[in-house]
Amino acid sequence: MDAMLWFILLAALIALVFAFVTAKKVSAADAGTDRMKEIATAIHEGAEAFLLSEYKVLVVFVAVVFMLLCFALRNIPEAICFMVGALFSSLAGFFGMQTATRANVRTANAARTKGMAEALSVAYRGGSVMGFSVVGLGLLGASVIYLLTGNPDILFGYSLGASSVALFSRVGGGIYTKAADVGADLVGKVENNIPEDDPRNPAVIADNVGDNVGDVAGMGADLFESYVGAIVSAITLGLAAGEPGAIYPLLLAGVGILASLIGTFFVHGKNGGNPQKALNTGSYVAYVIVIVCALILSSALFGNLKPALAVIAGLLVGFVIGQMTEMYTSDKYRHVQHIAKESETGAGTNIITGLAVGMRSTMIPILCISAGILISYQIIGLYGIALAAVGMLATTGSTIAVDAYGPIADNAGGIAEMSGLPDDVRNITDTLDSVGNTTAAIGKGFAIGSAALTALALFVSYAQAVSLDKIDIMDPKVIVGLFIGGMLTFLFSALTMESVSKAAYKMIEEVRRQFHADAGILAGTSRPDYKSCVGISTTAALHEMILPGILAAVSPLVVGLVLGTAALGGMLAGALLTGVLMAIFMSNSGGAWDNAKKYIEQGNFGGKGSEAHKAAVVGDTVGDPFKDTSGPSINILIKLMTVVSLVFAPVFLSLGSLL
Amino acid sequence: MDAMLWFILLAALIALVFAFVTAKKVSAADAGTDRMKEIATAIHEGAEAFLLSEYKVLVVFVAVVFMLLCFALRNIPEAICFMVGALFSSLAGFFGMQTATRANVRTANAARTKGMAEALSVAYRGGSVMGFSVVGLGLLGASVIYLLTGNPDILFGYSLGASSVALFSRVGGGIYTKAADVGADLVGKVENNIPEDDPRNPAVIADNVGDNVGDVAGMGADLFESYVGAIVSAITLGLAAGEPGAIYPLLLAGVGILASLIGTFFVHGKNGGNPQKALNTGSYVAYVIVIVCALILSSALFGNLKPALAVIAGLLVGFVIGQMTEMYTSDKYRHVQHIAKESETGAGTNIITGLAVGMRSTMIPILCISAGILISYQIIGLYGIALAAVGMLATTGSTIAVDAYGPIADNAGGIAEMSGLPDDVRNITDTLDSVGNTTAAIGKGFAIGSAALTALALFVSYAQAVSLDKIDIMDPKVIVGLFIGGMLTFLFSALTMESVSKAAYKMIEEVRRQFHADAGILAGTSRPDYKSCVGISTTAALHEMILPGILAAVSPLVVGLVLGTAALGGMLAGALLTGVLMAIFMSNSGGAWDNAKKYIEQGNFGGKGSEAHKAAVVGDTVGDPFKDTSGPSINILIKLMTVVSLVFAPVFLSLGSLL
Repeated sequence: MDAMLWFILLAALIALVFAFVTAKKVSAADAGTDRMKEIATAIHEGAEAFLLSEYKVLVVFVAVVFMLLCFALRNIPEAICFMVGALFSSLAGFFGMQTATRANVRTANAARTKGMAEALSVAYRGGSVMGFSVVGLGLLGASVIYLLTGNPDILFGYSLGASSVALFSRVGGGIYTKAADVGADLVGKVENNIPEDDPRNPAVIADNVGDNVGDVAGMGADLFESYVGAIVSAITLGLAAGEPGAIYPLLLAGVGILASLIGTFFVHGKNGGNPQKALNTGSYVAYVIVIVCALILSSALFGNLKPALAVIAGLLVGFVIGQMTEMYTSDKYRHVQHIAKESETGAGTNIITGLAVGMRSTMIPILCISAGILISYQIIGLYGIALAAVGMLATTGSTIAVDAYGPIADNAGGIAEMSGLPDDVRNITDTLDSVGNTTAAIGKGFAIGSAALTALALFVSYAQAVSLDKIDIMDPKVIVGLFIGGMLTFLFSALTMESVSKAAYKMIEEVRRQFHADAGILAGTSRPDYKSCVGISTTAALHEMILPGILAAVSPLVVGLVLGTAALGGMLAGALLTGVLMAIFMSNSGGAWDNAKKYIEQGNFGGKGSEAHKAAVVGDTVGDPFKDTSGPSINILIKLMTVVSLVFAPVFLSLGSLL
Repeated sequence: MDAMLWFILLAALIALVFAFVTAKKVSAADAGTDRMKEIATAIHEGAEAFLLSEYKVLVVFVAVVFMLLCFALRNIPEAICFMVGALFSSLAGFFGMQTATRANVRTANAARTKGMAEALSVAYRGGSVMGFSVVGLGLLGASVIYLLTGNPDILFGYSLGASSVALFSRVGGGIYTKAADVGADLVGKVENNIPEDDPRNPAVIADNVGDNVGDVAGMGADLFESYVGAIVSAITLGLAAGEPGAIYPLLLAGVGILASLIGTFFVHGKNGGNPQKALNTGSYVAYVIVIVCALILSSALFGNLKPALAVIAGLLVGFVIGQMTEMYTSDKYRHVQHIAKESETGAGTNIITGLAVGMRSTMIPILCISAGILISYQIIGLYGIALAAVGMLATTGSTIAVDAYGPIADNAGGIAEMSGLPDDVRNITDTLDSVGNTTAAIGKGFAIGSAALTALALFVSYAQAVSLDKIDIMDPKVIVGLFIGGMLTFLFSALTMESVSKAAYKMIEEVRRQFHADAGILAGTSRPDYKSCVGISTTAALHEMILPGILAAVSPLVVGLVLGTAALGGMLAGALLTGVLMAIFMSNSGGAWDNAKKYIEQGNFGGKGSEAHKAAVVGDTVGDPFKDTSGPSINILIKLMTVVSLVFAPVFLSLGSLL
């Protein structure tokens, strides 16, 4: 057994070393012209400023929860684990984003001086730092806590720490990125007719910062939370079957890290080749290694292949959901083309069709998740569901690398535009960026699927923690819990959408103010004040996330204390059910609208500037908060509410319920 | 006991006599000028043609289900009850619509010759024929079957019959009305710049027919289904507490009929007065009478007031949901005004805000329904939930009367426009119509609330019918059932929205064809071919409802036979949960967009023709299928799936499940 423990720790450390070395390698590359460096520094500083402001608020939040855990729960070890979870997730986010905001300009420079192959490599390397920081720190924390204390229950504190950071990063980051994006577009593109990423636009740096805080740090924290939640839940559920049951998920995570790492060496861009293919190869290699190792380890630890089959089921579900997401959001398929076609009759039909496509797109992912649940449960019981989640998340390292590649390539394009690099550079970054849109969509589907399985596994752990042997829908309290949980998803979605509107409005006012105060900005003779826009996004995002954040954190406590643990179980199930559906619906509608617009811009149905294009722009505007704020934030809602319920289970048990 | 039984039958018969007399009175009124009569006849014939075509398809459907009940279930009495349910619901729809399509022109004529007070009376009388046909036939069928057979279980066959007609009327009618509306608007208003209800528009008659088949017949069938479902469920659950438990809901229904009838005498319009107030008075009188009688009957039958408290809880929940619906969809409140304000920055922000308002509007109704469930259950157990549903639906007669008044007033306005009546006539009908928009929104909220409670009561009956003593969310099959049920709601919504698009597209093509073939139509010198448009709407609506209809009818059978009765229970709960949320969200978003547009048309934020108005028109276009097709159709989905599960319970029990 000792050798196994060492292997797990070693794998975690290897991930961190790899992340560190890769980060150094990225930093060592040439950042290009002075103008490029200047812009990149502004983005870098803006992203750092947001993270630091966010962490300041986070520290207060963490301190309050820490006190609560110490005094209400009287569980100091769990409180410390909570702090470690919050710290590790923050570190992963900080480290990953530091590199991402260095890789962007170097990708642009590689495109300028060396061509697409090298540009792809730099962007992918930049993303892989985030990927391996997440899995390295995630696994390190979980395994060290488990090995040192041997107490699996306090691991939920670690998970709660991860969830807290995810709440701030995903919800706050989601509001930031869309406030900046919508603000920049509306005053820049629509009102003053200047192109995307134009340096005259005061919000342009904030917009590029937004890609990093939303799509890099936010997504990383989301998957950190899922990764930790799945492992922790599998450990606790597996312990019922003895030590191997707890070690197996940790080993899988270790194997997954090495598999992902090996996968990265298979990502080679070719000049003129298809970047998508290069990125896929890395993931496929990782999948195959994980599947083989899962079978071998299962046979060695349990003497049979059953646990491995649950792992493989989870991995396949994740893969299929990703593919389905692409089918519904890529312009290579009929759904997006249909939305584009419907744009010809105006914005109304564009919106109706986009909403219908998003709703319809829930079908296959839900059937896949259902099949995954049934299969893994039939094979090996509730433990199987947690193993499926671990299987889906085992290759998180390479998934995040591919995912974070997108915003880096997007930023590279922005920097190329702002520094006036030649068209052929922009062509390379555009090709990389368009692949990034696909990987982002797939990544979103994966994040939802993994959040669903993780939340479900945590839900099972919750039921055990509060000693519920059943949560009976025939019990009216459970029904009421279901209704309240479902309603919370809708309310949370409404709040996050409204937050984007409010934050964007402040941005719009600032940009208008600057254009009005100094005519030289639009003329290109004076420099706009980028920093004030970055500051407005930062403040507005952190301010606007408070209400939805409180809703997510406090609801389980209120329902648990007023209606009891069974009703709370119903609430978690209701939120999980509607949350998964709404997240898929919103993410896919948003992705489909985005690509329908791009499909028209390629010259279809009248091309740029046509009536169809105007209609498609409306769809894209609606899709922005759908796919980048509300949809992904729901992942956090369902996981966080479950973890809060789990951690505070002893309080519910000791205090009882009011009704 | 005998006296009570006679009272119930008498109440049902009084309702039918009242409906008959009122219908005669409406028909006897003067229908105005020759031009008015001509137009009214076209609408009347169109509506009749749709109903007859619908009934032709329905006959086939009913025959198939009848055979299935006879041979698969070997339950000929239940099969006969099923036929009676389908027949009675169809009769109520046919009779109600016959009168509604006579009341419309007579309302216009009353406005022309006698002023608003008389116009209001005619429109309300027209609506009350539908109202009292529904409750009279609904109660007559339920009580006669129960009294003759003494077997409560076969009553679910009666309920299934009602659900089958509701499926055709609500889904088919919903597609019809929006296909005609969107088609007429897009080619008429947008492409050719002719006003609403212009007789040159070939789709104008189909559009007016649509108001009747969707908002009169569809809504009536929906509430007929809820009314019957609630009573039937309360009878079966109440029998556990002895004979009084079964008689009490029937007595309440009888009392509700008389209370509604007395209420109608309090509806007096005043020239220059507020029509809303007049309509409210009738409902309030009915509420008070029902509450007092519920208390007296409860004390007499059970020796305590507990059952009455559950009834009152349900009634209050229905009332509050209606009020909340108004708050979120009326331009007197900030939500609609906020959407109107956001229209200034374009269609994108209009849509985002409208979606957010709809999602947010789920909160209070869900909390109310939850409170109603908890209170009624705490008082008297599961029977209390069914009684709450009966309480909510006791005054259905007056609710439908107020609800059906809306489309009649709307039609009256259309007829006034098409026959070129003077402006002051149009002003009266416009005032009546704007009140109709509010009552329609409230009626929609009420329909959703009653569908939720009815489906829940039927769900409890289902669990008893398949002898489930628990439906445990910890059981993965139940979780999978929840997921599938939730997904079905999304899929069903997507399908019905797409159906509207497809049917509208056919309508658009036909209108364009007519304008193209004969230039005299637009010039006003030739008569357009109204009949072909009516025919296209009819065919398209019936064609497009097949797929969603099959989905609703067949899914429970598949899940029940493959995954078993517990999973099916999960599926029903999942569909109920997401169905209620989606129905509230879609109906309220749609209503809010509609009134935001009207608010701008009153001269706010730039008024008609401004950029804000154009944006608001986009919102209204999206809202049309939301509020008039997909949203209301979900009511049918959740009730129908539950009734199908209930009726086929013996099959699930005898065959067992595949997995």
